Amino acid sequence: MKLTVLGCGRWGTFLACYHSARNEVMLWGRPGSRAMAQLKAERKNSYIELPEQLQLTEDLAGALEFAEAVIISISAQQLRDLAKKIQALPVAGKTFILCMKGIEVESGKRLTQVFREEVTQPVRLAVWVGPGHVQDFSAGIPNCMVVDSDEPETTDYVVENLSSDLIRLYKGRDLIGTEVGAAAKNVIGIAAGMLDGIGYSSLKGALMARGAREIARLIRAMGGNELSAYGLCHLGDYEATLFSAHSHNRQFGESFVKGEHFDHLAEGAPTVKALVKLGEEYGVDLPICKTIYSMLYEGCSAKEALPRLFQRTVKGEFDY
Amino acid sequence: MKLTVLGCGRWGTFLACYHSARNEVMLWGRPGSRAMAQLKAERKNSYIELPEQLQLTEDLAGALEFAEAVIISISAQQLRDLAKKIQALPVAGKTFILCMKGIEVESGKRLTQVFREEVTQPVRLAVWVGPGHVQDFSAGIPNCMVVDSDEPETTDYVVENLSSDLIRLYKGRDLIGTEVGAAAKNVIGIAAGMLDGIGYSSLKGALMARGAREIARLIRAMGGNELSAYGLCHLGDYEATLFSAHSHNRQFGESFVKGEHFDHLAEGAPTVKALVKLGEEYGVDLPICKTIYSMLYEGCSAKEALPRLFQRTVKGEFDY
Repeated sequence: MKLTVLGCGRWGTFLACYHSARNEVMLWGRPGSRAMAQLKAERKNSYIELPEQLQLTEDLAGALEFAEAVIISISAQQLRDLAKKIQALPVAGKTFILCMKGIEVESGKRLTQVFREEVTQPVRLAVWVGPGHVQDFSAGIPNCMVVDSDEPETTDYVVENLSSDLIRLYKGRDLIGTEVGAAAKNVIGIAAGMLDGIGYSSLKGALMARGAREIARLIRAMGGNELSAYGLCHLGDYEATLFSAHSHNRQFGESFVKGEHFDHLAEGAPTVKALVKLGEEYGVDLPICKTIYSMLYEGCSAKEALPRLFQRTVKGEFDY
Repeated sequence: MKLTVLGCGRWGTFLACYHSARNEVMLWGRPGSRAMAQLKAERKNSYIELPEQLQLTEDLAGALEFAEAVIISISAQQLRDLAKKIQALPVAGKTFILCMKGIEVESGKRLTQVFREEVTQPVRLAVWVGPGHVQDFSAGIPNCMVVDSDEPETTDYVVENLSSDLIRLYKGRDLIGTEVGAAAKNVIGIAAGMLDGIGYSSLKGALMARGAREIARLIRAMGGNELSAYGLCHLGDYEATLFSAHSHNRQFGESFVKGEHFDHLAEGAPTVKALVKLGEEYGVDLPICKTIYSMLYEGCSAKEALPRLFQRTVKGEFDY
């Protein structure tokens, strides 16, 4: 299969390399991207060396023309802009796979909604989310991820063509839950990092149970299947987020409460804004999301706010 | 309140000390217990020093007569024997709280079932399970746990009298789910340790999602609420089990695959026998439990069997 990957960050570059073993692959980075400049100059980044046959380009039209399936892995908040550029090019019949997690802050929309609003040509569209770090995959350690779509046939097509022993793809059947769950896990990851930062790592157990519960209620209110919060897209990604030294979101939360600077993108930081908005829109109480929001954007103290989250003892565990 | 704790292992001794701050407490150990001998001689164990006011005894009749509420924290497989001894003494009207996790191997019965079969006097009976390590609590780090019972009033009584800022008690309303979930998390903990032992720690994310799913299906088949698997009794205890250096079950799993000797009780080792039996009885496929069983008792290789668990990619994630 001919495959294009749009986005040459850590994850996009890895996916391009990974798929090169069995497919013809082209990796695109936006003109002026520092990551792409490094890849062109050195044929590697901090995580991985590019295989010889992997083609690099900054030409979007050429990259799209090249492939029948297009993986997109960029910052979630930039998807709408990229989708507008894609719509200006002939892409009918192609399959797009969003390997990214987030909710558009301004609109509260899921990424497939954003993409479909801008790309109105007839294309197939899937998401590919779940646990897995480039560092582990590069070391040959397998993991399970989940693919979902608005059409089951698209899910099947992606899973059947792109699953392997290293990245084992499960078929999701709840696009709302899969997207919201995947986006929200980054917020729970920030919360975990904050607990680490204040020396309360042992509360990450309660965070897992209460966090997944909170997101399950939001997914249900939005019309999805609450069990998706307990699947690979959300709970299954907790290990790679709440407990991993590699997770940017966890590291960001830890750095934040320690008052340290952190240099990488933490998708959970914009996502929590969108989730708080969705909670209001759908009438769902999201105490963990609201607490993270209040710390990131309203100056609340982590040491006071975080442990308070776990003091709702008068309630039955599943009462709300 | 006057409180007796039966069982002077790590957890029982901690609970006795912890409750001594606000209650009159007596701690019982069986005659000849090495742990009790050490506590009597040194007024401490490896984890904690006994407060002065805490009374120690090896006299079961006196210990039971002393208190209105009795916490039991012993090895799960020894509960039936102790219950027989309790039934021989006058205990009508007292409240018993099982702070322990397991399923009786021979019968596949939950611990409250075992206890009620042997103690037929009119007593109130609750379980108290969920995450929390003695080491963390001793350092003042709080956690959330869950209390459940066959009568909601008993749950309320225990929560209202024994909850604190350090150990925050939630009210469970599904005794079957709470007991099975609590027992089963020790098995998932062994699986996590095995993954650590073969260098596949990153699969613990998928283990969390697939493990909780498997136990949810068993709970539902047994007549409980499948969501309990995603509550504090099971998922909420994963941090303290799957990711903690303190967890005996995780350590046991890791030692087992490395061929090292491990000295402590790992409740998950007998529990997995009971779970496999329950799976057969209720017609529920339990691939993770069966794999752990095959490694512990049938000589299967962890390196081969464990990664295979996560290869069921043709399936929908929640299809079964």
